[in-house]
Amino acid sequence: MTKPPPVDFGAGLNCPIPLTDYPSVLLAHGGGGRLTQQLIQKMFVSQFANEILEPLHDGAVFALDGANLAFSTDSYVVDPVFFPGGDIGALAVNGTVNDLAMCGARPVHLSAGFIIEEGLPMNDLWRIVVSMHNAAQEAGVRIVTGDTKVVEKGKGDRIFINTSGIGTILPGIKIHPRNARPGDKILVNGPIAVHGIAIMSVREGLGFDSAIESDTAPLNGIVATLLAAGEKVHVLRDPTRGGVASSLNEIAESSHVGILLTEESIPLTEEVRGACELLGLDPLYVANEGKFLAFVSPEGADDILARMREHPLGRNAAVIGEVTAGHPGTVLMKSRIGGTRVVDMLSGEQLPRIC
Amino acid sequence: MTKPPPVDFGAGLNCPIPLTDYPSVLLAHGGGGRLTQQLIQKMFVSQFANEILEPLHDGAVFALDGANLAFSTDSYVVDPVFFPGGDIGALAVNGTVNDLAMCGARPVHLSAGFIIEEGLPMNDLWRIVVSMHNAAQEAGVRIVTGDTKVVEKGKGDRIFINTSGIGTILPGIKIHPRNARPGDKILVNGPIAVHGIAIMSVREGLGFDSAIESDTAPLNGIVATLLAAGEKVHVLRDPTRGGVASSLNEIAESSHVGILLTEESIPLTEEVRGACELLGLDPLYVANEGKFLAFVSPEGADDILARMREHPLGRNAAVIGEVTAGHPGTVLMKSRIGGTRVVDMLSGEQLPRIC
Repeated sequence: MTKPPPVDFGAGLNCPIPLTDYPSVLLAHGGGGRLTQQLIQKMFVSQFANEILEPLHDGAVFALDGANLAFSTDSYVVDPVFFPGGDIGALAVNGTVNDLAMCGARPVHLSAGFIIEEGLPMNDLWRIVVSMHNAAQEAGVRIVTGDTKVVEKGKGDRIFINTSGIGTILPGIKIHPRNARPGDKILVNGPIAVHGIAIMSVREGLGFDSAIESDTAPLNGIVATLLAAGEKVHVLRDPTRGGVASSLNEIAESSHVGILLTEESIPLTEEVRGACELLGLDPLYVANEGKFLAFVSPEGADDILARMREHPLGRNAAVIGEVTAGHPGTVLMKSRIGGTRVVDMLSGEQLPRIC
Repeated sequence: MTKPPPVDFGAGLNCPIPLTDYPSVLLAHGGGGRLTQQLIQKMFVSQFANEILEPLHDGAVFALDGANLAFSTDSYVVDPVFFPGGDIGALAVNGTVNDLAMCGARPVHLSAGFIIEEGLPMNDLWRIVVSMHNAAQEAGVRIVTGDTKVVEKGKGDRIFINTSGIGTILPGIKIHPRNARPGDKILVNGPIAVHGIAIMSVREGLGFDSAIESDTAPLNGIVATLLAAGEKVHVLRDPTRGGVASSLNEIAESSHVGILLTEESIPLTEEVRGACELLGLDPLYVANEGKFLAFVSPEGADDILARMREHPLGRNAAVIGEVTAGHPGTVLMKSRIGGTRVVDMLSGEQLPRIC
C-alpha cells in the first residue's frame, strides 16, 4: 500500500469534557450559551489551537499572500425552513455576510454546502436557491463554490446549509472582541429579539394578530457606513444564538471589562414584548439576525448613532449601555424600576435550531 | 420596522428541474453522477451564475486584494463515522485540502462546521476532533474558524462536518478542467477504488481476511512536487464520489476532448478487485480519497511519473490513458481482451454517503 505511516490518532488523550457529567452531546451544546462555550473552548480550541482561531471572533482574520482577509463559516439548521420574513437560504447568506461584517470586513465571496434529506420537495429546494441568489445580490456578494450531499430519509431534516465566506479588511480597521474599553458606549441598530420570536411563533403555532417577521438582513452596508468613522468603532457583534445577553457576556470576558445596560433604552417592539411574555422568554436571550452591537468611543457615539439612523437598517438605533472598569467579565442591567441585576450568559438551551 | 423593501423572492420563476420527473430530491442527486450534475447545472449554476463558479472546478479560483486564492467547500456525511483507515474528521480535513490542491493551490486555512445529532457520545466527538487536528498537522494547514450546531435526536445522523478551505496559488500555475489537450497523458498516483470499498465492506459487514483501509490522505504534498514541473501539468482532479469514471467524463466534457483508457494499466489491488466482484461494483465508479488524476503534456509525462513515484503517496503511480482529439466528451476504455467500450458517467446512485 502507498499510505504513509499512520499518525497518532490520540489514543490515550482523554476527552476534556467530563464524561460523567456529559456522556453525550446535548441540544444545549448548540444553544450558544455556556455549554456551547465550554465545548468550543475545551474541545475545539484545545485541539485546533492557533493564534487566528483563539480570539473566537465571528470569523478568522489574517494576512495571506499580501491580502488582509476575514474568513467565517456557519451551518444553518433552522426549523422551520420557511418562516415569516425569510427562509433558511436567505438566513444562510445573510448570516455569513454578517459574521464577516462583524470582523470589520467587506464580504466578497461565499461558498454554499447543502445537506439535503432525501424526499425534500424539489420546488422547496428551488425556492431556497432563488432566495440565496436574491440575498447574495442584495448583500453584493457572490456564491463561487458549492457542494451537495443527500442523506437518506430520516437521517437529516429537510435541508441544512453551510455557508462560508471570505472578505477583505481595509487597512486601519481594527475591530476585535478584546477592544472594548471603559467608557465605550454600546449601540444597537434596532429592536431586538425579532428573529427568535418569528421562528417560535410559527413553531408554537401562535396566532398573533400580525405575523412577526424575522429581521434577517445583510448588515455589511450599514457597517460600512460606521467603519468610515474608523478608530471610533472598537467591537462589532451580531447577537444571534443566545441573544444580546450572551454576546455581551462574551465581549465582557474577552475585553476584561464590565458592562452596564439600561433596560428602558433597549429597543423592543410591543409585539415582540407581548410574545416574549406569552412564551416566557427574556428578549435579551432571543436570537437576532439583522441586528448588531457596536462598542464605540464615548466621543464618537453621537456621530455613530446618527450614521446608523440614516441607514434603513438603523432607523431605530439606540445607545443601550456602556462599558465600565468595575465588575470585569460581568454584565449588569439597571431595570426600569431602578434596581440592578446580573445579566448572565444563557446556561441551558432556550430555543433550539433558531438559525 | 426597519426592514428594507422586500426583494423579489422568485415568485413566478419556475423550477428548472422537471417536477413531473423529479418531484423530490433523490439519493442519486447526491451521488456524484449525472443527476448530481443536472442539479448543479440547472439549479445552482443558473441561479448563482458568475464566472468564478461556472468552471465547476474542485474549488473557486480568483484574485482578491492582490492575492491569488483558491476557495473550496465540502460537507461530509460519511456512514459509518469511523471506518478502517480513517474517520469523518480525517476525511473532512483531507477532502478539502485535496480539493484545494486540485486547483493548483497550496492549502493554508480551513474552517470546520459541525452539525451534531443530539446524543452523539461525547467521546466520539473528541476522537473526531483529535483526528481532525492530526490530519491538519499532517497536511500543514490550520483550522482557523468554526461553528457548532446540534439538532434533535432523529433529525441528523451522529455528525455531519463541513470544511471550507483557502489556499494560495503561485504565479504561473494554470490548472483547469478545461485545459486537457489531445496527446496529454493521464496519470493516477496509485490503486483506485480503495476508499469506497473500505466503507462498503464495513457497511455490508463483509469479513474480508484483511480489512481494506481507506486511502484518505492529504495530496497537497505530492501535488506540490508535480507543480514544480510547471506548465506540463494541465488538469488535476481527485476522483471522489462517482469515481475515476465520473471525473474523467467531467473533464472530457469541460475540455471538449476524448479520453482513451487502457484497462490493464489501471492500478487495482487484488483485495479491492475481489471485493468489487463480490459486491457487484465497477471499480471505475468507486470513490477514492487519496488518489488524483493528472493530465500532463506527453513530453512531460515520464518526468511527472518519476516525481510521483518518489513520493510515498505515489509509489504505484501509473499512466492509465491519454487524451484524444476524436470522440470529444466521451471516455472509452480498451479492455484486457482487446475490445473498446464506453465508460459513461454514473447515472444513478451507486454508493450513498461514501464521503
